[in-house]
Amino acid sequence: MKLLKYLPLALLVALPTMGAAQDEAAPAAAAAVSEEMVWIMNTLLFLIGGFLVFFMAAGFAMLEGGLVRSKNVTMQMTKNVALFSFATIVYWAVGYNLMYPLGSWAVDGVLSGVWGPGVLEAVGVDLAGADDSAYASTGSDFFFQLMFCAATASIVSGALAERIKLWPFLVFVIILTGVIYPLQASWKWGGGFLDQMGFLDFAGSTVVHSVGGWAALAGAIVLGPRLGKYKDGKTNPIPGSNLALATLGTFILWLGWFGFNGGSQLAMGSVGDIADVSRIFANTNAAAAAGAVAALILTQLVYGKADLTMVLNGALAGLVSITAEPLTPSLFMATLIGAVGGVIVVFAVPFLDRMKIDDVVGAIPVHLFAGIWGTLAVVLTNPDASLGTQIISIIIVGVFVFVVSFVVWVILKAVMGIRVSEEAEINGLDMAELGMEAYPEFSKG
Amino acid sequence: MKLLKYLPLALLVALPTMGAAQDEAAPAAAAAVSEEMVWIMNTLLFLIGGFLVFFMAAGFAMLEGGLVRSKNVTMQMTKNVALFSFATIVYWAVGYNLMYPLGSWAVDGVLSGVWGPGVLEAVGVDLAGADDSAYASTGSDFFFQLMFCAATASIVSGALAERIKLWPFLVFVIILTGVIYPLQASWKWGGGFLDQMGFLDFAGSTVVHSVGGWAALAGAIVLGPRLGKYKDGKTNPIPGSNLALATLGTFILWLGWFGFNGGSQLAMGSVGDIADVSRIFANTNAAAAAGAVAALILTQLVYGKADLTMVLNGALAGLVSITAEPLTPSLFMATLIGAVGGVIVVFAVPFLDRMKIDDVVGAIPVHLFAGIWGTLAVVLTNPDASLGTQIISIIIVGVFVFVVSFVVWVILKAVMGIRVSEEAEINGLDMAELGMEAYPEFSKG
Amino acid sequence: MKLLKYLPLALLVALPTMGAAQDEAAPAAAAAVSEEMVWIMNTLLFLIGGFLVFFMAAGFAMLEGGLVRSKNVTMQMTKNVALFSFATIVYWAVGYNLMYPLGSWAVDGVLSGVWGPGVLEAVGVDLAGADDSAYASTGSDFFFQLMFCAATASIVSGALAERIKLWPFLVFVIILTGVIYPLQASWKWGGGFLDQMGFLDFAGSTVVHSVGGWAALAGAIVLGPRLGKYKDGKTNPIPGSNLALATLGTFILWLGWFGFNGGSQLAMGSVGDIADVSRIFANTNAAAAAGAVAALILTQLVYGKADLTMVLNGALAGLVSITAEPLTPSLFMATLIGAVGGVIVVFAVPFLDRMKIDDVVGAIPVHLFAGIWGTLAVVLTNPDASLGTQIISIIIVGVFVFVVSFVVWVILKAVMGIRVSEEAEINGLDMAELGMEAYPEFSKG
Repeated sequence: MKLLKYLPLALLVALPTMGAAQDEAAPAAAAAVSEEMVWIMNTLLFLIGGFLVFFMAAGFAMLEGGLVRSKNVTMQMTKNVALFSFATIVYWAVGYNLMYPLGSWAVDGVLSGVWGPGVLEAVGVDLAGADDSAYASTGSDFFFQLMFCAATASIVSGALAERIKLWPFLVFVIILTGVIYPLQASWKWGGGFLDQMGFLDFAGSTVVHSVGGWAALAGAIVLGPRLGKYKDGKTNPIPGSNLALATLGTFILWLGWFGFNGGSQLAMGSVGDIADVSRIFANTNAAAAAGAVAALILTQLVYGKADLTMVLNGALAGLVSITAEPLTPSLFMATLIGAVGGVIVVFAVPFLDRMKIDDVVGAIPVHLFAGIWGTLAVVLTNPDASLGTQIISIIIVGVFVFVVSFVVWVILKAVMGIRVSEEAEINGLDMAELGMEAYPEFSKG
Repeated sequence: MKLLKYLPLALLVALPTMGAAQDEAAPAAAAAVSEEMVWIMNTLLFLIGGFLVFFMAAGFAMLEGGLVRSKNVTMQMTKNVALFSFATIVYWAVGYNLMYPLGSWAVDGVLSGVWGPGVLEAVGVDLAGADDSAYASTGSDFFFQLMFCAATASIVSGALAERIKLWPFLVFVIILTGVIYPLQASWKWGGGFLDQMGFLDFAGSTVVHSVGGWAALAGAIVLGPRLGKYKDGKTNPIPGSNLALATLGTFILWLGWFGFNGGSQLAMGSVGDIADVSRIFANTNAAAAAGAVAALILTQLVYGKADLTMVLNGALAGLVSITAEPLTPSLFMATLIGAVGGVIVVFAVPFLDRMKIDDVVGAIPVHLFAGIWGTLAVVLTNPDASLGTQIISIIIVGVFVFVVSFVVWVILKAVMGIRVSEEAEINGLDMAELGMEAYPEFSKG
Repeated sequence: MKLLKYLPLALLVALPTMGAAQDEAAPAAAAAVSEEMVWIMNTLLFLIGGFLVFFMAAGFAMLEGGLVRSKNVTMQMTKNVALFSFATIVYWAVGYNLMYPLGSWAVDGVLSGVWGPGVLEAVGVDLAGADDSAYASTGSDFFFQLMFCAATASIVSGALAERIKLWPFLVFVIILTGVIYPLQASWKWGGGFLDQMGFLDFAGSTVVHSVGGWAALAGAIVLGPRLGKYKDGKTNPIPGSNLALATLGTFILWLGWFGFNGGSQLAMGSVGDIADVSRIFANTNAAAAAGAVAALILTQLVYGKADLTMVLNGALAGLVSITAEPLTPSLFMATLIGAVGGVIVVFAVPFLDRMKIDDVVGAIPVHLFAGIWGTLAVVLTNPDASLGTQIISIIIVGVFVFVVSFVVWVILKAVMGIRVSEEAEINGLDMAELGMEAYPEFSKG
């Protein structure tokens, strides 16, 4: 709905608020929903979308907790709760301001004490005047945007599991959520140069998912693979300890994605907007289902056995694939786009292994590779998209995030050390680093 | 909003529809909610209801994953993710169209390419003109209805667990969600002959739950019981491997049911409608609670020990029981109706065992028996219901679904074989069929 | 959707915006949202808030199930499902009426048969006239309020785990949810004397959380610690059996808290109200994050190791702390208030152990101590609060709940016995009391 940006006010008022049907729609419809009500509905969309995306933090935690060995589950839980918590604080203190630097909020915010008491109060006082409050409450926008930022960090935590130290990881999270994510997000969603170039990324296949993927990739390279993962030229599978938990995590992420993509419509106060949100829900679901089915059939054909972890990652890859453009595809195209995501995962997981890049949960195939695919796939259904611009934007964001992340990881490695000792890794991070097992009573086979 | 029933129509039109404020509100209030706003709110109900019912897929997976033995958990997870995914694709391609054949959507849909790109786009183009878009967005309706269809398949997956092969099961799911469910659902919810006969089934005690139950019953009979379940005339209990997971699944289903029943009001854009949705929420909750309490007390009295799996199934049976009529009962009646559902479960589970029908999770007692009870119970509180019509409808749907399912199962058995080998069953489907354990590190006691 | 950014300021200023500002807002704005629409939106807030708070029942169950030993998990699940179910019935039959004795509902309710068929129907008939229906549907209000009542009981169940008998516990739950909770809640939320004194407790740091905490404290004292917990003057840690489950429970509670605090705004039908709900969401999240971070850093500093269970309880303590006033604090202050909650937990857990009060899950530190802190912290940001009144109210509620609960526990002990036998405690409540293990296949280490 970016087009409205440039419409004269007069047109706006007359706008019948819905898509193609607009042609036949009665003129009376124009005044049918008051501006106040539109504002309320948009805000409600952010709140509902926000709590759904919040719950994705639990989804990531369960998915990752299910895919690591039981000796590292307490650590994985600790990281996931901590990363979300730090993201909350850092995005409030730095990130949100960095991401929307053009808003008067930033200026007023500083004046009225961004760094001290009164951030949202300041915002509250400013609500009537602030630019970004013209279509929804700033509180709801902040809440919603925060969840996207935190999701980026969750992606990293899965890929680097079972060998990274807690605190260096959290330092990286602070830099990622406070600086790296918001900066590049401002290029698109803050109205920056990528946006002005015409880059299209509806809910963040690139801005969120590939960013998490690039940061994870840099981390996985600097950190190195787990002990015993690659030995004598062979890849040793290391099975996850709890596939029921991993499945639950996938379902929770799937659920949260309705908020992720649907909320990114940014409006539901008109017939046209909520019809669009509906299409997004249906498309998002279709892409997830198609990704799962594609991975199911493909693993059956290629390996002779259906592979649950591939099916789960296939669903997630389908979701990532549709995230850059969940609105314009027909259900058929959404199904197709998601299915390709599922196929990508099935081939990308062994490909990464051949590169000796150890991604514990498959986060890089799901979020980076399918994220790139999804960003490119925008051109299939959205006539406003330019393939060149999509590619250039993917490269710019990729180079920026990968290089900065890589440098940060190298510095962290040099300064704090990022990897636990061999002994700790063998005994498990839970006992070695935290002194607390996740399943102390279930003897290990 | 039964009071409105007795008001003269003239008054109704002028009625400002709300409480105390009514006194002062008077004439302006009549037009208080614009048609556009009603449409938006109805659509929002479908979206919220839809994601809640979506989450029931996770609930079924956790419930079933908790009630099977650990050697079959990966399979159960695979089936549940796969069945939902296939249902999504099939219901889009065939089911929805079959279920609402009277809508202009079907006709326009075919013209504008149901089978190719542009299903929802086509619908989008039609939004203003299509019958089914007059009260809410077609996208939201499709999203919501899809979830009901998928729930039907989830019911089957639990009953047939621990012995059925993956692919024949999925073929059955495709037939169930693409043909069997939509066809019979059209008889009631598509405005077909059961609807015209006056059959009442608000959210689907029969249309959804008993259908899943009948299909599961046919499957359980054709498939036969698990090895060792019935031996020397005795029933051997086979305990579930993870009751925490089963409890989580039950709570998730309970949560999702607010969307299931509440969303089935199909409207919340007026004071009357949302007040009805509220009653439905409260009644749904009351019935679930009563079912749980009834099963708790009854198992304590009958067996001398409270039985958690019965309590969980009691709650679910309470939910199924109130699903045919969650609106007209008082809270007292909802409590009573739900409690009877809980009682049914406690007696039906051993009854099925005496019949040597092996239903792993108790799906048939919960969804079929309580579904029948719920459908009959409509006559207790809804004066529009006729006991004869309810019974005839139950029988028609039951015979149709059972017979067709039975035939499909028999054909699948003949063509593909539906049961794993004895060896595979003993070793567990996870290793035998999928080569992947759900809990590889937790040694089996 | 930055478009409005460029709207003339004049228009923006005229735009009906927020609470306080509304007083001065243009008259046109007053009619911008019809009274009917306000009623619908308020009702919707209760429904969404209600299902979120409902889900907290699952959160408590998972948290508690993860923190007890595996031999007591079936019992913990049974208690949590049962307590919610009994609370539903009792709050309907007695509690709600007791809590809002001033409403005409009580009177009319009795006349039209509160104790028999027709409670909500009665309410339905009364909708137009009843006081409590003037701002939202009574059904939605009942649904929402019920969830708060049930939450109180969930708090108790965690503290007394692993040694209390099922049925005496449930009898206590009936008294707590039918009488103790509603009575004291009426003093504040029913417009009673605490409310008239100026006591402020927005969403229930005292009214809900400390009440659960006091009841738990009384129970823990009467019940005594678990065998082996305190021996030879030393506290023996008894690790929880499933920290992944406990983490899931915490995330679910965190999610539910958006409904808990956000729904307690009781209105979202105006720009001011939904902007307030947005602030509450953001503040609630900030406090949780800060509580987790505070506990994480503190346990790292004090014990040399991050402690996941403290981090989880830190997040929950942050949530409890902000519950008494989630609206007026700035994000900075919310962060601070939550962080103090996290600090309280880290010191309160060992303090209770020194007192030999055995609280299995840390419910008393989280809900009672942080609840007191949150109630006091209201004075930091809300100029309407009086420290004296807050303190007096905390004491009145505390004395009432603690004394009554203590007496009830003592009577239950005398009449039924509340503690399982030593043998049962050692073997686990699951086998001894219920004959059903939660994880029968995972051998105990």
